[in-house]
Amino acid sequence: MTLFVIGLGPGAADLLTPRAAELLATVTDLVGYAPYVARVAETGQVRHTSDNRVELDRARHALTLAAAGRQVAVVSSGDAGVFAMASAVFEAVEHGDPAWRGLDIEVVPGISAMMVVAARIGAPLGSDFCAISLSDNLKPWPLVLRRLQAAAGAGFAIALYNPLSLARPWQLGAALDALRTVLPGTVPVMFATAVSRPEESVTISLLSDADPACADMRTLVLVGTEATRTIARADGGVWLYAPRSASHASASETVVTAISRVA
Amino acid sequence: MTLFVIGLGPGAADLLTPRAAELLATVTDLVGYAPYVARVAETGQVRHTSDNRVELDRARHALTLAAAGRQVAVVSSGDAGVFAMASAVFEAVEHGDPAWRGLDIEVVPGISAMMVVAARIGAPLGSDFCAISLSDNLKPWPLVLRRLQAAAGAGFAIALYNPLSLARPWQLGAALDALRTVLPGTVPVMFATAVSRPEESVTISLLSDADPACADMRTLVLVGTEATRTIARADGGVWLYAPRSASHASASETVVTAISRVA
Repeated sequence: MTLFVIGLGPGAADLLTPRAAELLATVTDLVGYAPYVARVAETGQVRHTSDNRVELDRARHALTLAAAGRQVAVVSSGDAGVFAMASAVFEAVEHGDPAWRGLDIEVVPGISAMMVVAARIGAPLGSDFCAISLSDNLKPWPLVLRRLQAAAGAGFAIALYNPLSLARPWQLGAALDALRTVLPGTVPVMFATAVSRPEESVTISLLSDADPACADMRTLVLVGTEATRTIARADGGVWLYAPRSASHASASETVVTAISRVA
Repeated sequence: MTLFVIGLGPGAADLLTPRAAELLATVTDLVGYAPYVARVAETGQVRHTSDNRVELDRARHALTLAAAGRQVAVVSSGDAGVFAMASAVFEAVEHGDPAWRGLDIEVVPGISAMMVVAARIGAPLGSDFCAISLSDNLKPWPLVLRRLQAAAGAGFAIALYNPLSLARPWQLGAALDALRTVLPGTVPVMFATAVSRPEESVTISLLSDADPACADMRTLVLVGTEATRTIARADGGVWLYAPRSASHASASETVVTAISRVA
């Protein structure tokens, strides 16, 4: 009896792995947040959709179905192991029916949001980097701030997941303020929404005037470092990248002025 | 004139994205480290292979070919933007022929090694995490140590890329020693080699007795946190995962004893 926990990638069909596509077409049941389940091609699967913020209930439901002999896929956007359903499934296993420890659970990786966003902009995660969720539903906000400051102070580029929601409207602004106490205002900040999908938008600004209003629930925010380089493209846009060598100086003034909105 | 910088994923054919597969089959020229180029299906592409540690030369060669009108793909294992060729390509653009700024450069993301390894073991990167390269070819070793200690001290799980090579035999041991000054010995450490390929091997141990000899050039090392949970599977193996909540206590003694070698 097998339970698959599958990362759907960012949304573009050609960024879904063949492994994931094959499994999604053969399972009997799909379990997930409704907009993600809706992305999966129809091949007769029974669809069990739920609202967000009920990850543990959803995981238990999937495990119950799998233990009853169904072929079940739990789906997440991006990579299932990055701020997504894989942790919830194992948490449910640890604290649930001992029989669930006999299930064959396969996590199928997907293209994570930060990789797609980085690729869209250049290579801003090409040196040491970290990923931090700004959600304080499950961890205390002072711990979020401590991690932001530790990471920025040590020179990591930072991918900010779950930057805001209706229930968490102020966290992104507070996070950017905290980063301003550690990093110079010239560090680039990228707001990327729905990358790889038709409604994609990317805004690049400097930390000094990065505006939380550029983000919504679908946005991933990338924060560069003092070493992040900016290249002016011939078409008027820019590429951002992390140099391979940590000995590079910070971005020059002339290059910084090239930063502007990218469609 | 387009240059593609393509992540091949970990090696399994069914973890290569359709986008990457389509482009690889249509380009005229492939550029990359020989073992990665060898993974690409033969469709008549001219193959320009090189040894490792010549990333910048390789990037310039690819840009020169693209500027001359060839359809070129530079290939990396995993994700091209994570300690791979994308940064080298943009570094070459910044310091090279101004005409290269007029090229259409598309970075095509791939499944990164840390995502595949995490999926193989459970969900050890399911909470805040970071990625650090242990190579000190291009950054000073004290900076590596500072980042390791900052990340571990703030509770990030850590993916260690480039843990060792013939020219860098001692760095992984020194990194584990540095982590032992910050983290308790009960934190799990995962050595994963060639995951998704036939020769795959995974070893899980505790930080207190993690042995650098478990790693070779193909190994990714994941270091958990005090919060990482271990679940004993019915088949004798274990799953490791990062709880979604940061309020969970560290792994209990009884669970820690379940950690053992996983085939």
